Amino acid sequence: MKIELSRDNSNMSLVDQIFFGISERIDSSLLQRGTILPSVRKLAADLGVSIVTVHKAYKRLAKEGYIHIYKGKGAFISDRHKNTLSKYEKKTELSPFHWQQTIDDYIHRAQLVQYLQFSNPIQFATSVIYPKLLPTSLLAETMKSLVDKDPSILVRYCETQGDPELRNEMKKFLNKVYQLQIPIENIMITSGVQQGIDLVARSFIGPGDVVIMEQPCFTGAIDVMRSRGATILTAPVKQDGICLQTIEELCDRIKPKIIYTNPTFQNPTGTVMSEQNRQILIEIAEKYDILIIEDDAVGDLYFNNTTPPKPIKYWDRNGHVVYLKGFSKPLSPGCRIAALAASGIVFERLVAAKATTDICSPLLTQKAVLSFLQSDKMSPHLEKLRIALEVRRDRLHTYFSTHLEQLITYRQPMGGLNFWIELPCKYNAEQLLYQAVEHNILFLPGSACFAKNPRRNFIRLSFSSVSDKDLDEGAERFANLLRNSIK
Amino acid sequence: MKIELSRDNSNMSLVDQIFFGISERIDSSLLQRGTILPSVRKLAADLGVSIVTVHKAYKRLAKEGYIHIYKGKGAFISDRHKNTLSKYEKKTELSPFHWQQTIDDYIHRAQLVQYLQFSNPIQFATSVIYPKLLPTSLLAETMKSLVDKDPSILVRYCETQGDPELRNEMKKFLNKVYQLQIPIENIMITSGVQQGIDLVARSFIGPGDVVIMEQPCFTGAIDVMRSRGATILTAPVKQDGICLQTIEELCDRIKPKIIYTNPTFQNPTGTVMSEQNRQILIEIAEKYDILIIEDDAVGDLYFNNTTPPKPIKYWDRNGHVVYLKGFSKPLSPGCRIAALAASGIVFERLVAAKATTDICSPLLTQKAVLSFLQSDKMSPHLEKLRIALEVRRDRLHTYFSTHLEQLITYRQPMGGLNFWIELPCKYNAEQLLYQAVEHNILFLPGSACFAKNPRRNFIRLSFSSVSDKDLDEGAERFANLLRNSIK
Repeated sequence: MKIELSRDNSNMSLVDQIFFGISERIDSSLLQRGTILPSVRKLAADLGVSIVTVHKAYKRLAKEGYIHIYKGKGAFISDRHKNTLSKYEKKTELSPFHWQQTIDDYIHRAQLVQYLQFSNPIQFATSVIYPKLLPTSLLAETMKSLVDKDPSILVRYCETQGDPELRNEMKKFLNKVYQLQIPIENIMITSGVQQGIDLVARSFIGPGDVVIMEQPCFTGAIDVMRSRGATILTAPVKQDGICLQTIEELCDRIKPKIIYTNPTFQNPTGTVMSEQNRQILIEIAEKYDILIIEDDAVGDLYFNNTTPPKPIKYWDRNGHVVYLKGFSKPLSPGCRIAALAASGIVFERLVAAKATTDICSPLLTQKAVLSFLQSDKMSPHLEKLRIALEVRRDRLHTYFSTHLEQLITYRQPMGGLNFWIELPCKYNAEQLLYQAVEHNILFLPGSACFAKNPRRNFIRLSFSSVSDKDLDEGAERFANLLRNSIK
Repeated sequence: MKIELSRDNSNMSLVDQIFFGISERIDSSLLQRGTILPSVRKLAADLGVSIVTVHKAYKRLAKEGYIHIYKGKGAFISDRHKNTLSKYEKKTELSPFHWQQTIDDYIHRAQLVQYLQFSNPIQFATSVIYPKLLPTSLLAETMKSLVDKDPSILVRYCETQGDPELRNEMKKFLNKVYQLQIPIENIMITSGVQQGIDLVARSFIGPGDVVIMEQPCFTGAIDVMRSRGATILTAPVKQDGICLQTIEELCDRIKPKIIYTNPTFQNPTGTVMSEQNRQILIEIAEKYDILIIEDDAVGDLYFNNTTPPKPIKYWDRNGHVVYLKGFSKPLSPGCRIAALAASGIVFERLVAAKATTDICSPLLTQKAVLSFLQSDKMSPHLEKLRIALEVRRDRLHTYFSTHLEQLITYRQPMGGLNFWIELPCKYNAEQLLYQAVEHNILFLPGSACFAKNPRRNFIRLSFSSVSDKDLDEGAERFANLLRNSIK
């Protein structure tokens, strides 16, 4: 457990940083019930802080129910969600792998893996699209003819930057749909948007480097930045996107290297950054020499025939934006294909990072997406998909406004895959989740989407991944759950 | 450009660390001809060292031809290989992306990408297998019937750990071939061995953490460890594998976290660690609480019917070994599939890291490899492949012993894909490569395989990736090249 402490960060005290470093590991199940924490003395020595500082952090962890301190025995992770004190069990000491506890690791949180492990029937937690809404049989047919035509795509390595044909098709797509003019030399194929974010972080972010992120934010992006030891500052998400005033105030105080934003149908809130704000954000980046990661995972999935503004990348003159366009969600999550567009040295470094990470993405999955894009079936598919998702959103909205009006607050999303639901303050969504699992439904507790100071009374509920059949049933169970727990 | 300096490292002076941090970036083309280095004063301030220290490092860089210092203008990267002084050109200043030069990056070297960019006809540089030797049409057939049977594999996400069916098949394979007993819960599918190494590094290695690596070593592993800011100590590779005496001496002085080894047909030297040494290495790991990364990319590709010793993992009692078994090279480089086996917290952390990296590997490519493993065609395929590679090795060996006997030294590899060739000291393989490109052949200069103090008179020559037709032609061009440059 490696906690990077930032001493020139008036933003958070050392006690809070230690508290947070440990609690986020517990929240994402990296530290599990019964695990013993290092002694106060040892952790203080490891981190180079006073014993009093660690002691205060442990006391706060105990107060908030994360750990239980047994005098003379040590501090053990407790089971917060069951409201029972854990008997201190040193189960790990009995295992031959016990020595592994002495290895410091650099993983702070991993929310993504946590919710992919469940396999519950009614899945509101992962924001992927119900497979029947995807062009499966079309993909299957093109795939078969591809393999027939050139079986060698199964065995060849591909360039690190990605298949030139696919990059060319991406170029055309980005130009046609968003009026982006990106030469194929500046496009790289990545294993989904997630890998794109990771490549930028591993190339440019290290311990103590400052990143500005949205609050709340896409969990996968937080996981990546935390694992690099970044100092994360947050700016709230408003109705027209990440708060630019906060960003400017932060930039005046401390030089950030990167701003991460998901401007279109933001995950989790669903908000859209206005066109004017996109242009201003570019100006801020130019003024302070900042890189922007623009995560555009679901920009194509707009509702009510209302297209969102053009990507921030459109206004990028000097190579400030690393634009990540996902093709996973609307087409094939399984294929793990996204396009990354950037310029100059920044782009060169990202290609080098990709080679170090996994050499190249599989050619087969690239060709599968290629054949679909070439077939001119992308536009009609997206058209249908938008309608199907809009119908789902409306069904849930109708149900919620009838049955939960007094209980929950949310803004109707104009695109994307999620509702971002606020519960009354007294609710704790993490505890609700444990009851939800018993009712065979799953959602994402909103706290996972906060890079710091998590708020516990939010839920991200994805309307895209359940089957049509399960949508109403799931909504009903969700409503019952909320109503029953208010008692 | 972020250079992590290790101050408690008697192993290398600060001047040498700075020299090396810059020269390896130049060697792997991350810093290119004409780029201006930061001023002595600025770099000294950034690194927190004296101006004299940086000045000495720059002087050494200039002396070895890496840079050219123009009084009052600054230090510019020069073109070493052409033996011409670079006119100092500030081409990057003219570009709108010039501001990007102010962004510190964390990429130290990226040898892999460099040699994948060329597309020369006779390719001795990349150690992949000539596609016609791979079971392409079989893979194509199984792939088509897979997609027919269940088209949804094209669109579904898969568990982060990998497809359970494939993990089960991997389990059986590892048991049958190596007598390894790994439960499927402890197997994860990664995008090639490269990603496996990267996952271990990002989970457990950070700036200043000590890693012991082979010297010479697989370039991709060095790239990964350097990008994490690891302090790399090296142990020479002897005829029976990495030198254990050196490792023990290092462990007595400084606690390493990880030992990286490629024990079977080591890349690049082709050596095999003896069974006894494998057992001793485990004992060392147990004594000093060290993790071992066992890279087994080509263990199945042995010659003369002589199977190598069982993997180090076989003797692992307490979860010290992260075993990486590649399926890319012998089956399908394009599918990017490897199996990772580990235990305890270490394994859990690696799964979390995989989720953060790219969520999961594509299901389609996993199923392709699965169908091949299930078909019982793996053994006969490997059988044939071994013979084909052995024939290639022998053909080159015969040619070399007739035409280059006086000029080059190497040990006949008993498996794997490479010759590791030593030239007389006066040769510089990097400069030779520039001539080789003009002769339309490509090899890997051995210096890329050294984590520190590169030796310039080595060449890694892969006999696996050229076509049958080109093998003799390539050998002849290589021989001519060497003979002509001795004059």
